[in-house]
Amino acid sequence: MKVVLLSGGSGKRLWPLSNDSRSKQFLKLLKSPDGRPESMVQRVWRQLASCGLGRSAYIATARSQVDVLHNQLGPDVPLIVEPSRRDTFPAIALSVLYLVSEAGVPSDETIAVLPVDPYVDDAFFERVQQLDFVLRDSGADLALIGVRPTHPSEKYGYIVPESAVSGRTYADVRRFTEKPSADEAERLIAEGALWNCGVFAFRAGFLLGELRARGLPAEYRAFRDAYDRLTAISFDYEVVEKVRRAVVMPYEGAWKDLGTWDALTEEMDGPVWGRGVIGPDSDGAHVVNELDIPVAVLGVPNVIVAAGPDGILVADRAASPRAKEVANEIRQRVMYEERRWGWYRVLDYAKLADGNEMLTRRVCLLEGRNLSYHVHRKRMETWTVLSGRGLVVLDDHQFSIQAGDVVRVHAGCRHSVKALSELEFIEVQSGSEVHEDDIERICMRWEDIPNRHSPA
Amino acid sequence: MKVVLLSGGSGKRLWPLSNDSRSKQFLKLLKSPDGRPESMVQRVWRQLASCGLGRSAYIATARSQVDVLHNQLGPDVPLIVEPSRRDTFPAIALSVLYLVSEAGVPSDETIAVLPVDPYVDDAFFERVQQLDFVLRDSGADLALIGVRPTHPSEKYGYIVPESAVSGRTYADVRRFTEKPSADEAERLIAEGALWNCGVFAFRAGFLLGELRARGLPAEYRAFRDAYDRLTAISFDYEVVEKVRRAVVMPYEGAWKDLGTWDALTEEMDGPVWGRGVIGPDSDGAHVVNELDIPVAVLGVPNVIVAAGPDGILVADRAASPRAKEVANEIRQRVMYEERRWGWYRVLDYAKLADGNEMLTRRVCLLEGRNLSYHVHRKRMETWTVLSGRGLVVLDDHQFSIQAGDVVRVHAGCRHSVKALSELEFIEVQSGSEVHEDDIERICMRWEDIPNRHSPA
Repeated sequence: MKVVLLSGGSGKRLWPLSNDSRSKQFLKLLKSPDGRPESMVQRVWRQLASCGLGRSAYIATARSQVDVLHNQLGPDVPLIVEPSRRDTFPAIALSVLYLVSEAGVPSDETIAVLPVDPYVDDAFFERVQQLDFVLRDSGADLALIGVRPTHPSEKYGYIVPESAVSGRTYADVRRFTEKPSADEAERLIAEGALWNCGVFAFRAGFLLGELRARGLPAEYRAFRDAYDRLTAISFDYEVVEKVRRAVVMPYEGAWKDLGTWDALTEEMDGPVWGRGVIGPDSDGAHVVNELDIPVAVLGVPNVIVAAGPDGILVADRAASPRAKEVANEIRQRVMYEERRWGWYRVLDYAKLADGNEMLTRRVCLLEGRNLSYHVHRKRMETWTVLSGRGLVVLDDHQFSIQAGDVVRVHAGCRHSVKALSELEFIEVQSGSEVHEDDIERICMRWEDIPNRHSPA
Repeated sequence: MKVVLLSGGSGKRLWPLSNDSRSKQFLKLLKSPDGRPESMVQRVWRQLASCGLGRSAYIATARSQVDVLHNQLGPDVPLIVEPSRRDTFPAIALSVLYLVSEAGVPSDETIAVLPVDPYVDDAFFERVQQLDFVLRDSGADLALIGVRPTHPSEKYGYIVPESAVSGRTYADVRRFTEKPSADEAERLIAEGALWNCGVFAFRAGFLLGELRARGLPAEYRAFRDAYDRLTAISFDYEVVEKVRRAVVMPYEGAWKDLGTWDALTEEMDGPVWGRGVIGPDSDGAHVVNELDIPVAVLGVPNVIVAAGPDGILVADRAASPRAKEVANEIRQRVMYEERRWGWYRVLDYAKLADGNEMLTRRVCLLEGRNLSYHVHRKRMETWTVLSGRGLVVLDDHQFSIQAGDVVRVHAGCRHSVKALSELEFIEVQSGSEVHEDDIERICMRWEDIPNRHSPA
């Protein structure tokens, strides 16, 4: 069996901590068993490994998330990168074709598809493992996991089985119902309906057949080349709801969608994350603070304060799911970003009276990583090294740097830096434009930089 | 007549925007008639000038406020600097002695004493001018201004006149009453009582007599030298409440103490100062934001959000006067400071794994101003010039700098910089300690720096 995790989302519902390049699954607001901050994707990846699925798992994602996935899960995490965003049917098809055409997975192998961010017990992944058996035992086209509802939620989709599945491993699916009213949800639950948690399995060959039936290429490279022209449509809509026969297996444990501040703060280890003080008369208040400065809450019960480099949200618990609306209204440069080589944080930006711009960043390069060898046309940079040791190349000449050193990179100068140990520096950019687009990459790999060994 | 403004206060009630070096009177949250941001001290100074009292006014203050007063009111503002903090009786006595002993003010001249931050109409200062007449006309020791109460406030002190003063210029004071209950306040108002706004006038000679009666020096230098040993006591307590005869003149216009967030936000030009969005269901919410990032409020009515380099306060309007309690709990380096030469803002601070510290600041030197010539023992500094032109001296050698230049100042290097035009730079400090205390000043004035004209 292979597992495909779907990693997408712009994460605006968790503004200001999530943004276009840092979706909700990458926020390190949870705690790992050894007490370190952990993101949702790190938690799921750890859980997959601990139940023996680690080596079978792939992540399907967009180009914009490649760096942060490498940063959080390591450089070896197997990724299937979508050429563009086309919803889940094309993404899943691309993944299956990659596994069959490129990774040599046989067409009768079971493929289990999961969202990248379910907040669940480890027992959930045991259920995922059992999908292989269920699929073969039932002979169905699709095997799903349904979560046993704890309350008549109006937010979820429901899977209605042919017969109650208590005491049985699985049952046939009778129908699907999206976001019912509370009354309707109560009737569905009485009928034995389960929450659809977006987890399903099928045999690789089943999907190849589905593609052929639609006149789509059933080979990886051809499909990838056609990708940008495909219709964006969800797998649920295009396949799950139309399938000949689907079965569902119940899961009785904890399951949560931590996609909004009210849901996420409930799973936090305490009311304050980061620097913060919650004063009297503020029952139910939560502070999530990524900034270096303290947050104080006085006399505001049930408020959620989320503060990060991109902004500050002050929302009543019930209003907090509307953070997305605010995020859409506010135009803001991304102030914190994780990249394949480490992370940076914007400390200051200003447009000066003479039209020139300046930007100050704190940059951290992880041990062994390097920036691409590149050029800026419209700005100069000054690096003041704070800690660590590294190698710098300027116009093909290499030298070493350490804490206290200052490096000046003039506009038009080819440059790169590699961290020998974790390397932090303050970078001051100044010029007619200080934008990420002003970059010409010469090569990505340190080994490919020409003549980088200067004469001693 | 001379006017003495008392400028004190740690301003913790307006945390996080005010702090030990930036008291509430220095926050530029009001708007001047020409639409520019204005602080309370700038407003009062402008009002004094516009009613002809500008050239008669002095500010009594502590050393810690000298820089910010020069910054906001100009280098020529006449200051009387207290050697230490000793409450208002010693401060007023010091000021009067300075005027008599050093500025040649005759002992029968009227001295009017005002807090530095009354939020009042211009008419208030016309009343201040009339104190001179009232004092001479009545022959009383003290003439006070009493504000006509608008409601039975429990927060203020009340001045009870011998007879109602409506239609008359002034009346004798019968007694003072501090912070009455609401019922008591209603009875006082029915009696014709006025709010004590801390404004009073007396003749210089009266105070000299008071000092002699207490066995205290009645000469400026002797008094100043004894200052640190004086008892800290308020002028109200030591003089006003014990005086033979005091009269009070009513003032009917607007008067407010903008010392808490709920009072201050009511005088703001709109609900949002700085970058902010107030969403639906948030009636009565106010955002005061000094940061570069946006604040969004969702579904929290009557909340006050104050965000600045020192921290973020989220308080219900009614709870906001308790900001002081929070400020006392939080230990935080001052992140923004106005100095005689300009201002700086801390962008980043970190203590590294090897024990070294680093601090990044954005620094602005006003045109013509200079830093002292000084040395740091425990840190190096790197300056990247963002805008403007200036002169730098390093170890007695002078050179000029402009946008794009980088200056390195090693530990132990004597250095200074002067702005030829407004000069901004990013300063990265790194070393075993990056604290303001690590400074040895050689001289303050640019002219006194030795050999600063290096050979061409």
